[in-house]
Amino acid sequence: MSIRIAALRAGRPTFSRPKVSLPQLSRRAYSTPSSRAAPSYKGLGASAATGFAIALGYTIYHGYNESKQVRCDAAPLVDAVDTYGYPWLPVDAIEKDDPKNPMRIRMANWVKSLQDHIVNTMEKIESASEPNSFSPSSESPKFPRDTWLRKEGGEGSSCVLAGGRVFEKAGVNVSVVHGSLPPRAQKAMLPDHPSLPEPIETVPFFATGLSIVIHPRNPHVPTVHLNYRYFEIEDPQNPNEPKAWWFGGGSDLTPSYLDEDDCIHFHQELKKACDKHDSRYWPDFKKACDKYFFITHRGESRGIGGIFFDDLTTSSPINQPPVSTMKHKTKEDLFEFVKDASSAFLPAYVPIVYKHKDRKWTEEERRWQQLRRGRYVEFNLVYDRGTKFGLHTPGARVESILMSLPETARWEYMSPVGAEGSNTPEEGLQKVLKNPKEWV
Amino acid sequence: MSIRIAALRAGRPTFSRPKVSLPQLSRRAYSTPSSRAAPSYKGLGASAATGFAIALGYTIYHGYNESKQVRCDAAPLVDAVDTYGYPWLPVDAIEKDDPKNPMRIRMANWVKSLQDHIVNTMEKIESASEPNSFSPSSESPKFPRDTWLRKEGGEGSSCVLAGGRVFEKAGVNVSVVHGSLPPRAQKAMLPDHPSLPEPIETVPFFATGLSIVIHPRNPHVPTVHLNYRYFEIEDPQNPNEPKAWWFGGGSDLTPSYLDEDDCIHFHQELKKACDKHDSRYWPDFKKACDKYFFITHRGESRGIGGIFFDDLTTSSPINQPPVSTMKHKTKEDLFEFVKDASSAFLPAYVPIVYKHKDRKWTEEERRWQQLRRGRYVEFNLVYDRGTKFGLHTPGARVESILMSLPETARWEYMSPVGAEGSNTPEEGLQKVLKNPKEWV
Repeated sequence: MSIRIAALRAGRPTFSRPKVSLPQLSRRAYSTPSSRAAPSYKGLGASAATGFAIALGYTIYHGYNESKQVRCDAAPLVDAVDTYGYPWLPVDAIEKDDPKNPMRIRMANWVKSLQDHIVNTMEKIESASEPNSFSPSSESPKFPRDTWLRKEGGEGSSCVLAGGRVFEKAGVNVSVVHGSLPPRAQKAMLPDHPSLPEPIETVPFFATGLSIVIHPRNPHVPTVHLNYRYFEIEDPQNPNEPKAWWFGGGSDLTPSYLDEDDCIHFHQELKKACDKHDSRYWPDFKKACDKYFFITHRGESRGIGGIFFDDLTTSSPINQPPVSTMKHKTKEDLFEFVKDASSAFLPAYVPIVYKHKDRKWTEEERRWQQLRRGRYVEFNLVYDRGTKFGLHTPGARVESILMSLPETARWEYMSPVGAEGSNTPEEGLQKVLKNPKEWV
Repeated sequence: MSIRIAALRAGRPTFSRPKVSLPQLSRRAYSTPSSRAAPSYKGLGASAATGFAIALGYTIYHGYNESKQVRCDAAPLVDAVDTYGYPWLPVDAIEKDDPKNPMRIRMANWVKSLQDHIVNTMEKIESASEPNSFSPSSESPKFPRDTWLRKEGGEGSSCVLAGGRVFEKAGVNVSVVHGSLPPRAQKAMLPDHPSLPEPIETVPFFATGLSIVIHPRNPHVPTVHLNYRYFEIEDPQNPNEPKAWWFGGGSDLTPSYLDEDDCIHFHQELKKACDKHDSRYWPDFKKACDKYFFITHRGESRGIGGIFFDDLTTSSPINQPPVSTMKHKTKEDLFEFVKDASSAFLPAYVPIVYKHKDRKWTEEERRWQQLRRGRYVEFNLVYDRGTKFGLHTPGARVESILMSLPETARWEYMSPVGAEGSNTPEEGLQKVLKNPKEWV
């Protein structure tokens, strides 16, 4: 692996990325109905710089072109670099990992390095986009970084961009916390985590995770969510051999407008990461994602899917060898899976951003996006376990927990937008949310 | 009572209310800092019609004038009529009440008539306001009325105005439902309602209520909420003698900008209604309101207070006579209180609307209002018992439950608006929300 990384590093130029001139985002496009139908790169042909832009878009997202028929077969999972030598692979994160360290250190290093890598990539997308009426400054928007300490033990860092050219609100947060877990809290976790020791005394715990929610401005660029975490109950006598531990995580896509190619592409990238480790992961984790991100009172999913898993440990049923003579999975195997699944985030999402970020939109499309964001808020505040757990934890950092909420959202009583029988793109999305699809 | 009503009816003119010309609402006022400081009617002096407008405002809200020093002593609770003969008193509701009917019929009639009365008043405020950029039509906005049937038993009617001249989103909903309550649901209610019979079998229940949430457009006009309800567990052998019953309800104000006179006025009107029936009601119900509408994870109240009560029945501790020889309260006494408290809504709120509805606002003030609405959403989705109960009830009418959510809301990470030490009007509100005040 290290030779490949060295090669990637050598290929990464030190000069700063030249500005790509793209047509400026129009706030109120009031486009004709036909312009709503499908993404088009035709408008780019108008400027001298657009060959460049298409090359950029195409390289990053090869396989996508103007024909809706061609299936996307986007950037390979691990070792691709884009035109500017910017690697999909989180090189620093991989280099930093030292198998001699205990897992809590390795996972904390991993999520911290991945945070940097993803923030850098998002900032590059901002700098590759022109200023617009929402973000008129000629200075490229950056993610301010807030680091914080937890009184009870631990730390975190929140990188939240607001008012970007492409991203209306984007949060990339890491936390590394530890402390004491009373029996009551252990009991509450027991149903989801049967490997926990019997809750009879307060035990020391450690938890670390990376959490991302990105709400783009353009209604044609989907919202995306990622969370990967590692939890352990420590043994004070033997700090490097926890009494219990597990990984959890996943990533899912929430478009306002359905682009089937996007859905297929996003799922394919995640499936690749899953299949590399266990052919049972993909079908199980995709199903769990559709089940988890369900807004029961609306009878619809929050988004179009992805993967979701929790309590992934060597004793999990899904990790038992199909034949008893086969080798059991090790903790190392599971960490490798978590690294690959979380590394799949950028190749799964970024090409979709490049594909749509300069599309024009109408006020009606923005209205629909705002209504969908209202549903996003409903899910997060009413159902999401992490949010609920966080809000009910005294002393929790509310600003970090609620960074997942969109900057703006909308609720209409009996909204006509996307209504049944309207035969609109909005209704098209609704249908899929009510009947989640497999995609790949 | 009926003579007074007849007199009021006689005084109510049949001609329609003439249009009052007020300066048109400006969307982006970008006013100077001084114009933020206090409401002013000076701008009204510019037009010939304004003497009229001031007369209107003054009559409706006598006691308010240009001096902030003068305490408001607004419209009397029951029998005032405004310049156009429009009564505060819900005359139709009072006339319809027939003590010979069982309480469930009387309360259902009451909330239905009060709904009509309040919708009419709100529509009059709309028609007394000029069209503006949000509501440019020359036709005065109306509340469309949706009636619905509940499959399991009962009906309701939702009046929700969207896109008004004054009200961005306003819902006035009535429901009258009945059905079967399994022991599990009864057990869940038991802690709050000790008068419930022992939950051993499925029992028939009846519930009716009026629910109002009004989110005005102008950041200087506060959001208001009202809910009054009656619940009973029926005795199939004796339909007019329920096995258990109670009233619940209250009303509370949620400003984005603090106007102390408004807070005092709103509380005074509710206090008057309470004091008329029992001097213990006001202090108890005001305290309960501050306690209930608290956003725990933010450490702040949703609004500046009002009244809140639940499980109000003749056996409630608060209804026991202070001296054992004194007369016990009857169900009729409690219904009279509920009628007065719910009738206090218009005199408590409408003058505040008239006082501020034509004030200019800045983009920054709108932004703060949107952030406050985000908090409103947080409270309703995370804490509000009615909303949570509704969303988790299969077959509930989600559109009616969530009509309480504002049309638009906003979340910023670590928002600088209203920050501690900023010494702004926004911080002024925050301080009061963190330390609820008595007001009267």
